[in-house]
Amino acid sequence: MAKKQLTIGIDIGGTKMAAVLFDGERVLMDFSLATPKDDLKHMLVMIKALIEPLVEKAKEMKAKVQGVGIGIAGIIDYKEGKVIESPNIVYINGIKLGEKIEKFVDYPVKIDNDGNCFLRAEMALGSAKKFKNVYGFVIGTGIGGAWWYNDDIYRTAHGGSGEPGQMFVDFSDRTMLEDAYHKLTQNNPGNMAEEAFRGDVLAVKSFEEMGEMLGLAFANVINILAPEVIVIGGGVVESSELFLSAAKKTMRLNIVSPELRKRTKVLKSKIGAEAGAIGAALLV
Amino acid sequence: MAKKQLTIGIDIGGTKMAAVLFDGERVLMDFSLATPKDDLKHMLVMIKALIEPLVEKAKEMKAKVQGVGIGIAGIIDYKEGKVIESPNIVYINGIKLGEKIEKFVDYPVKIDNDGNCFLRAEMALGSAKKFKNVYGFVIGTGIGGAWWYNDDIYRTAHGGSGEPGQMFVDFSDRTMLEDAYHKLTQNNPGNMAEEAFRGDVLAVKSFEEMGEMLGLAFANVINILAPEVIVIGGGVVESSELFLSAAKKTMRLNIVSPELRKRTKVLKSKIGAEAGAIGAALLV
Repeated sequence: MAKKQLTIGIDIGGTKMAAVLFDGERVLMDFSLATPKDDLKHMLVMIKALIEPLVEKAKEMKAKVQGVGIGIAGIIDYKEGKVIESPNIVYINGIKLGEKIEKFVDYPVKIDNDGNCFLRAEMALGSAKKFKNVYGFVIGTGIGGAWWYNDDIYRTAHGGSGEPGQMFVDFSDRTMLEDAYHKLTQNNPGNMAEEAFRGDVLAVKSFEEMGEMLGLAFANVINILAPEVIVIGGGVVESSELFLSAAKKTMRLNIVSPELRKRTKVLKSKIGAEAGAIGAALLV
Repeated sequence: MAKKQLTIGIDIGGTKMAAVLFDGERVLMDFSLATPKDDLKHMLVMIKALIEPLVEKAKEMKAKVQGVGIGIAGIIDYKEGKVIESPNIVYINGIKLGEKIEKFVDYPVKIDNDGNCFLRAEMALGSAKKFKNVYGFVIGTGIGGAWWYNDDIYRTAHGGSGEPGQMFVDFSDRTMLEDAYHKLTQNNPGNMAEEAFRGDVLAVKSFEEMGEMLGLAFANVINILAPEVIVIGGGVVESSELFLSAAKKTMRLNIVSPELRKRTKVLKSKIGAEAGAIGAALLV
């Protein structure tokens, strides 16, 4: 029997780096470490430490790790393996992170935007598997996104498709979706969800408002791109019962094409928290 | 020498139907008639009357008309030749207009959204000829649009890509771009332009505001689609000196990707008022 192809995926967030050892279908092992706050050198050491136990696990299984994929929030030059602009980890801005890590870890490394990684995982293994034209929203600390079209992530030479969080919700004061989301959830959607589940009326109301806001953002995307499906992921999906029906209702009311109004689906991530790391593992 | 292939294109607007006889490069003759207000039967008679002189002209040139293409504002099922929803001419809603006209005029007929026709003409003959990934805004009576990607108009089975006018400029009161545009121009951008050119300070200010609004709309599209070029057409382009520099400045300030911020171009239609009819002629 042929050996399984194993890859490692790392989702680098503002607070933690979550890694998985992946066999193309399942996660064989996962491991996390805190994201270094100080500098690139420290990050490289930590990435080496992060993948070590996963490489060991692969050795135990007499399998070989084929490469390392990495997902990061921000504008990424996928072809060059370069971080153009990371909002959370400023010391990697302008750095060819793929190359730097390759020198450190003996594996080929690819990097991509975290929204792209999330959607790649959902397309391969998750909710959106059957579809061809899918827009993904990742709603967690911030709001990211990606579009799947023609059998791949839509990307141009200089970025794009992944910035629904920068959509304007108010042209007059230039508030963007992500800022409005931060304000509404007081920068702590998890906490607000707890309050809502405990019955706090204001928190419940805020989630409904968030649902309406997301519904309008979905409609904006649908009126331009007409995807078959909007798939939503990120931490907030766990509280989807608090906002998803309001989001769907508002979305439908505001789609222009009558056929799209009937047909466009909204699906929740099936993979959950590991979608980003799994999508990164699928890069190599 | 082979005979030139001639086609007829008709741009059906809310007030007039403008037709051209087209040889693939140039307009050989044009002719317009008022759009009937009452019913489909009247429209069919008028379309027959509209193309008659153009067919005669083709006969004089000993050339044959290959077919008739038609552009209309609204949601069009291009494949079925059906008008799903026309905002201006309600009596054609739900009608397979292509089929109806074919029975009346002895030529094969194709219909498409007017924004798609505009962009098709600009891609073939106009400002955007050299580019591959182009978003078109048609700013006239209303605001329409279309996207050119992968050597064709982007379209899905059920519409989409052509509805930037329905983008929300204010989520809280659900104002859409087209409504804000109507309000700002008091439903008469031509009149407002005259006032501005005469030096009316309020009119000049309103155009600057319109520029800022359009700049944010362009940024919204660029942050999702990352086209190389935004090409603008429609009647308002004639007054572009009143708003275009404000639009470009605001757009650049609000593009997320630094590379896109530098590279994305805004170009004016070169073809002008006949772009819609020429793009329709290019359908057949």
